[in-house]
Amino acid sequence: METVGEQIIAVDLGGTQIRAARYDLKLNLLRRENTLTRAELGPQPTIERMKAYIRKVLPAPADDVLGIGISSPGPLNPFTGVIVAPPNLHGWLDVPLRDIMEAEFNVPVYIGNDANVAALAEASKGAAQGCRHVTYITVSTGIGAGIICDGKLLLGREGLAAEFGHIPIVLENGSVSSVELEAAGPAIARRIKRLIQGGEQSAVTDLVEGDLSRIDAKAAGMAAANGDRLAIKQLAYAGRIIGLGIVSILHLFNPEVIVVGGGVTKTGDLLFEPLRRTVQAHVMDDAYTENLRIEQAALGDDVALVGAAALVATAGGNLDISELDRRF
Amino acid sequence: METVGEQIIAVDLGGTQIRAARYDLKLNLLRRENTLTRAELGPQPTIERMKAYIRKVLPAPADDVLGIGISSPGPLNPFTGVIVAPPNLHGWLDVPLRDIMEAEFNVPVYIGNDANVAALAEASKGAAQGCRHVTYITVSTGIGAGIICDGKLLLGREGLAAEFGHIPIVLENGSVSSVELEAAGPAIARRIKRLIQGGEQSAVTDLVEGDLSRIDAKAAGMAAANGDRLAIKQLAYAGRIIGLGIVSILHLFNPEVIVVGGGVTKTGDLLFEPLRRTVQAHVMDDAYTENLRIEQAALGDDVALVGAAALVATAGGNLDISELDRRF
Repeated sequence: METVGEQIIAVDLGGTQIRAARYDLKLNLLRRENTLTRAELGPQPTIERMKAYIRKVLPAPADDVLGIGISSPGPLNPFTGVIVAPPNLHGWLDVPLRDIMEAEFNVPVYIGNDANVAALAEASKGAAQGCRHVTYITVSTGIGAGIICDGKLLLGREGLAAEFGHIPIVLENGSVSSVELEAAGPAIARRIKRLIQGGEQSAVTDLVEGDLSRIDAKAAGMAAANGDRLAIKQLAYAGRIIGLGIVSILHLFNPEVIVVGGGVTKTGDLLFEPLRRTVQAHVMDDAYTENLRIEQAALGDDVALVGAAALVATAGGNLDISELDRRF
Repeated sequence: METVGEQIIAVDLGGTQIRAARYDLKLNLLRRENTLTRAELGPQPTIERMKAYIRKVLPAPADDVLGIGISSPGPLNPFTGVIVAPPNLHGWLDVPLRDIMEAEFNVPVYIGNDANVAALAEASKGAAQGCRHVTYITVSTGIGAGIICDGKLLLGREGLAAEFGHIPIVLENGSVSSVELEAAGPAIARRIKRLIQGGEQSAVTDLVEGDLSRIDAKAAGMAAANGDRLAIKQLAYAGRIIGLGIVSILHLFNPEVIVVGGGVTKTGDLLFEPLRRTVQAHVMDDAYTENLRIEQAALGDDVALVGAAALVATAGGNLDISELDRRF
């Protein structure tokens, strides 16, 4: 009889760094390593580095491993384990990462996009622990989501779910934009820059020492926290747009919790208050919000590692998350 | 050992009529009866009439029944079987219809909202047969949807999914409307009426013999089919709005088929062409549409009955639709 490993290897593949860790079956962290990568070198050196860091965290004996989970920027195919062409991973084009890693380590390898993996993480060990109807939204340089429907990760026919950031938003001039193009960090920065260039006063100008090309969501958040009206207004606009997207989520999925993470959420209530107000104003019926929690993500920097481990524990998102508690 | 019934009773509870039918486990129709109701009398006479018509289609012996499925207008709670307060069912308020019917017939009773039930129907015997990732949209006096994710009906935490019609749509004046308020039959009629009142010429005026209060989506469809530009334009607007909603569905769910039914879809390409153009124009990546079918519903008037039968066969939507083929 083949033994089933009782430890999980998790990898967080990012644009600038690789993190690898080992977890037990209850997703407790046993060991963690990280290293910077040079994205401009393309996939081959990054893959070798990933292998080296997986070896660093492998248990002895290595056959105690249940599987390896990898969180990667999308687009990717979770069913074939092929990384398609992520904008953040220079030169990666249809890389069969799962097959490469399975050949190297001879254990099952599961690959998930970072937002889906983060949803599993928050549902396993974070702000949505114990919940079966979960939407996780990340707001940073892009806007993505991972959705858990009645205990199972939503992947869709080709594994392309759930691109919350690409919900269309009609603008007042009639053109069609999207949640991401209106509310992600770069959109907030772009609007502030344009308004300052148009003559408006803002403390952001001082924060970037007059170099408007340096404006980003972080500077906007700092200025807003200090009471800068222009920055506050732009964060509120982003909150309203995300709130409208969440109204769609509520009506379509009727979830019990919406977890919002990502760099831009560090602005806290400056984003969350207009977001919540928009949800309350436009939900069709209180039944959708009465038992709803809208929460900041709980897991911080380790979210991708915990999620990659949860990906292994749910066999790539194919098992019900509640099965985990029963199984282990 | 308890025997499991091999016949299914299906009921379509509507605002003006009740239909009852008997199906075998493969959802082949064995018998069907229908009767008009007088909605203004409230729930009690309607429930008695429903019982009478269920008896008409019951098999002999009656213990050969697997269960009774009821399609009803929402809002309702599919977990408790309580009809909450449907606008189309006068005087119905928190009616425990499941318990009433289980007490009467002593078999399991399952209740589903008409759009969810129709999704099961189209996935079982209609335009989405054999598919596991299905969105069914109905466009008539309201706009609703039923969504099947990887073989299972999406219900949500409180059973309130999936209200496609209430996806918010921002208008050019900045106010927030919804897919239903912009694109359902009454919205199409309202806009045409307003434009005619504003002095525009349309063949619709003749169709309603000058009585603008009689304008409805059917008249709009007839005029549009005859080339009336104003009616064509308003159907196209509705198609674009529904198309925008479908873009959200594609990005969130990555389905393999979108089935669109309901009275307004009788206008055919006048609605579907602008709808498809909008989807193609605003989808983030061709990967979402390459293998996608957008189809008219196939089942016609029997959709609610077939769906109510499918509701029983899937134990209220709790079983995977593929299990049915394996089980029977």
